Amino acid sequence: MSGHAPYPGKSPYSMLSVDECVGMVTSKVLGPLETQTVQLNAALGRILAKDAVAVEAIPAFPASIMDGFAMRSKDAPGKYPVDELAGTTAGADSRGPLREDHIRYITTGAPVPAGADTVVKVEDTHQLVDADGKLEIEVLCSSKPGANIRAVGSDTKQGEVILRKCCRIGAAEIGVLAALGLASVEVFREPRVAIISTGDELVDVGAAGTLDRSRGQIVDCNRPLLCALARELGVEALDMGFVTDDLPKLRATLVSAFQQADVVISSGGVSRGSKDFIKELLSEMGEVHFGEMCMKPGKPSTFATVAGHGAQRKLFFGLPGNPVSCFVTFKLLAAPALERLRGLPQDTPIYPRVDAELADPVDMDPVRPEYHRARARWEAGRIVAESTGFQRSSRIASIADANCLLEIPKDKGTLPKGTVVKALLLPHGSRSLVPSPEGFPGGRIRAQPAKPPPATTVEAGQPLQPRPLRVGLLTIGRDASNDQAFSDLLTVLSSCEIVEKEEYSVEEKSSHFLADLLETWSRKSCQLILVLADLGLGEVDAAVVQAVREGLKEAPGVADAVARTGLALSPLAMLSPVVAGTQHDTLIVMLPSSWAPSCTAMLCKMVAALAEDLRTQL
Amino acid sequence: MSGHAPYPGKSPYSMLSVDECVGMVTSKVLGPLETQTVQLNAALGRILAKDAVAVEAIPAFPASIMDGFAMRSKDAPGKYPVDELAGTTAGADSRGPLREDHIRYITTGAPVPAGADTVVKVEDTHQLVDADGKLEIEVLCSSKPGANIRAVGSDTKQGEVILRKCCRIGAAEIGVLAALGLASVEVFREPRVAIISTGDELVDVGAAGTLDRSRGQIVDCNRPLLCALARELGVEALDMGFVTDDLPKLRATLVSAFQQADVVISSGGVSRGSKDFIKELLSEMGEVHFGEMCMKPGKPSTFATVAGHGAQRKLFFGLPGNPVSCFVTFKLLAAPALERLRGLPQDTPIYPRVDAELADPVDMDPVRPEYHRARARWEAGRIVAESTGFQRSSRIASIADANCLLEIPKDKGTLPKGTVVKALLLPHGSRSLVPSPEGFPGGRIRAQPAKPPPATTVEAGQPLQPRPLRVGLLTIGRDASNDQAFSDLLTVLSSCEIVEKEEYSVEEKSSHFLADLLETWSRKSCQLILVLADLGLGEVDAAVVQAVREGLKEAPGVADAVARTGLALSPLAMLSPVVAGTQHDTLIVMLPSSWAPSCTAMLCKMVAALAEDLRTQL
Repeated sequence: MSGHAPYPGKSPYSMLSVDECVGMVTSKVLGPLETQTVQLNAALGRILAKDAVAVEAIPAFPASIMDGFAMRSKDAPGKYPVDELAGTTAGADSRGPLREDHIRYITTGAPVPAGADTVVKVEDTHQLVDADGKLEIEVLCSSKPGANIRAVGSDTKQGEVILRKCCRIGAAEIGVLAALGLASVEVFREPRVAIISTGDELVDVGAAGTLDRSRGQIVDCNRPLLCALARELGVEALDMGFVTDDLPKLRATLVSAFQQADVVISSGGVSRGSKDFIKELLSEMGEVHFGEMCMKPGKPSTFATVAGHGAQRKLFFGLPGNPVSCFVTFKLLAAPALERLRGLPQDTPIYPRVDAELADPVDMDPVRPEYHRARARWEAGRIVAESTGFQRSSRIASIADANCLLEIPKDKGTLPKGTVVKALLLPHGSRSLVPSPEGFPGGRIRAQPAKPPPATTVEAGQPLQPRPLRVGLLTIGRDASNDQAFSDLLTVLSSCEIVEKEEYSVEEKSSHFLADLLETWSRKSCQLILVLADLGLGEVDAAVVQAVREGLKEAPGVADAVARTGLALSPLAMLSPVVAGTQHDTLIVMLPSSWAPSCTAMLCKMVAALAEDLRTQL
Repeated sequence: MSGHAPYPGKSPYSMLSVDECVGMVTSKVLGPLETQTVQLNAALGRILAKDAVAVEAIPAFPASIMDGFAMRSKDAPGKYPVDELAGTTAGADSRGPLREDHIRYITTGAPVPAGADTVVKVEDTHQLVDADGKLEIEVLCSSKPGANIRAVGSDTKQGEVILRKCCRIGAAEIGVLAALGLASVEVFREPRVAIISTGDELVDVGAAGTLDRSRGQIVDCNRPLLCALARELGVEALDMGFVTDDLPKLRATLVSAFQQADVVISSGGVSRGSKDFIKELLSEMGEVHFGEMCMKPGKPSTFATVAGHGAQRKLFFGLPGNPVSCFVTFKLLAAPALERLRGLPQDTPIYPRVDAELADPVDMDPVRPEYHRARARWEAGRIVAESTGFQRSSRIASIADANCLLEIPKDKGTLPKGTVVKALLLPHGSRSLVPSPEGFPGGRIRAQPAKPPPATTVEAGQPLQPRPLRVGLLTIGRDASNDQAFSDLLTVLSSCEIVEKEEYSVEEKSSHFLADLLETWSRKSCQLILVLADLGLGEVDAAVVQAVREGLKEAPGVADAVARTGLALSPLAMLSPVVAGTQHDTLIVMLPSSWAPSCTAMLCKMVAALAEDLRTQL
């Protein structure tokens, strides 16, 4: 009954997983492109194609490290005339060997004259000029042979490999290559990339004012996006413009692109619409390796290869037309291929893949895993990822400021807040993820040697304290008074006397104030002060912890017992600082507010057991 | 007695701390430079000078999400003729409203015709063509109003702020700006930077073959280095060449530089040598704010300002001549100033400042804090920094591949391995620091909900096991057989029978193999298998932990007891995975090798206590 159906139906391509697709692309990249020699100032960001070796020792001559006086070490200290008033300055003509019983001025970097074996810095001398203008230098200290002299090869030995093949040439490496006297270096050739947009509906961004909405015209944002994505990898892309959905025109553009480029990237024209010609054309011109990828967004992503001149076939990425799909599939498929072609070793990961905790619930797709755009940040020692919002593939705002892609598995339902998923960290985001930043310039320069905590433990099973116990309650930071935990705590403490209660804001008050507060309360005969603080490992929080700790005689066993209770409540408990100790005859314990209801009964018991002990210690 | 002293003595500048110097520089940057409008393709890496707002809604018309058929939702399911054979394709001329009791083909992104309120995807239809060529579309399912249609403004509302002022424009943001129809954007002007090298001894890298070592000539590597450092910040620097130590020439070059640039950066000529003229010239041309910085390397670093046309004075950085000093002081002083001038907000940290653990002992300087070049890496949840080696300021190899500067305090003696110091992470290093990278493509896509560990505990004080106990010893990963810990362990086990002993490399063997090995040993009547593994929280390590855990009946109390012993040995113990459990009648415990000597006696005791229990369970 059915005759010729005019509209395209389902895709004839079988749907591959993302891993299969990435593996397929990787298998088609034979290795880096050929090498080429470029001028040093063009090498920034490129990948070095052979080891950089020191052909000469650095320094090549014994050089002074200081502005001072070259002399014989056996002569120091003493008074000596100079043998050459002009001295030996860096870059000036050599002035021959140092005369016996003389001394000579020398500047930093200048070759130490023959005869001299030490340099005394100018600060360790006096210049004595008598009435007749006769100059003598008084050397005030002794000086060992070789002092303040860089021996030949002491920075870099001749033949030493300074940079390894396949290293990325950053600014530091440019400096190193220059120091080795290399005005040009051998690097891998950059792939030539051509970018094409396809679609009758497209208008160049420069003509955005002329958009005809009734025809469904939209601005072509994929081309600027893809060109910029390539440029972030160090590759200047060839912008081939946009082509309407016209088979001959599209064919001609693709032929031209393959003539000029190693890698051709198109967007649009890969779905199953009546005007989607990309897959058809690529099947004709080369081999389509996949045409459906099991992911969201980016399902119709297409990868093909076309014969080139050498063994390395030309790569074609047919990315979907929605800009978000375009962004995500470029990152997943095209970027790794470009990085390998430009010299990055196969075993170097393109994107770090880390565990991240969802800051909000995320709906799953029952059919395809989703690469959810998000902003990852550090929080108390773990990575927390916040969605960029509504993830529809046409909503380009979802890629703004994203620094990771969350791998959301396919499934029914919603992943709750706090679920740990894998995140691919994107290196070129506008904000890259950094561990617990403290900022620069920071406070004082400090170093703290790692110190094991004392190993003593205290058992908690002790007779109950006669009530009422006098308790102080201090909550730091967040408004803990709204918490269920806080009201649970008050229930636990219902038969105790709350002597003092205060909210303390970290921003408002100094650490000094905090220490004072605890001291005051402890003098007011509180037996127990609970400091409820949802703190992390950051620097500000550390200052608070330090302030609480100040003046305490620490009770690590108590802290240990609290921490173990916390561990039973949360696997992240180890990241929450716990402080426990005594001040006068008060037990002060700082712990997260959510743990307090579970720990407090035990702490109350401890107070009784500790009471005698504490008084003895005073 | 003392007449005219011909050589310069001590510096007349008082030595300021690094924080004071950075603060001084910061105070002289009034804010970003003026704004300018640039074409979109020139905006990559720039800082946006005003909010980017959607002037129109996206989409501006109701658009189809699918290739399919536009229809009235009340009509589905059913069979309908098409009202226009060509359908509505994106970008094509509008074809007017949908006829009653008809259906129309539509492609992704095309405007939904008036009259239609739903789109049925092509997969949910059949195309029926009878012998006369008459076409009918059978819609197989019902379709809700609005289905597969992007409503006007559903991606982006009119007037919505999509990018905020002061955001860095990455590739994603280029795509967003294009989608908003912005062919040009307002950004802050880039500072113009001039780079000058000074010194009689310098030879251009292009003439490295002509070096005269007897005169102390060296290649000028500072200029290529500084130009590349500026370019890494997105600033194309003006290379002013090198100037010999000649006061009039140097003055003329500086005058020319200040005429052309907002920021002038020189290297060399700032020490106390007889030919160091920079400070003298800058005092003459403007105001020198500091001329000595208390740090290593980079002590003679000089900062000055010179009047310009507007309120923002021109900035001058006189960096030392040693290339390493040049690199470090550019990063500490010049880079933050350039970033602020180009628009980065004052409160955005330039370098994350984090805690890092020394991988090796580091000698301190008794007089000045040192900014020690190092490579930071993630290891078991903490940052470990490995020195780039000998740190002399002339040894440029010490900056190659560095990704952080360790702040080593001034003091006598040596900081031992494991000391925690502050590290400034450098964003543009050839390898930036990434948290526990797992690589991409990775394994399966997975999500794991956070799960609290069991809270039970088991006490260890049990009667001693009759000897000899049969023990299996498996060491994983590092060559633990060299460790003192391992020989201590053998002493503890001296009266036990070592039934099996094996080294297991994570790289070589599969996790499956590991589980099999433990199963085999446990069947060989080992009563205790100790798995010594210095593992962290990374993904590979997690797989090993999982493999050991497989098939075990876990004994969390035993694990807890081991972990507490570990905590007494190291404050980082909580980061080391411990697994304990039973398989058949064998107790299997995985723990770090250094803990084993302390835990083993206790574990041997446990075996006896558990023996009866275990047999009952089988």
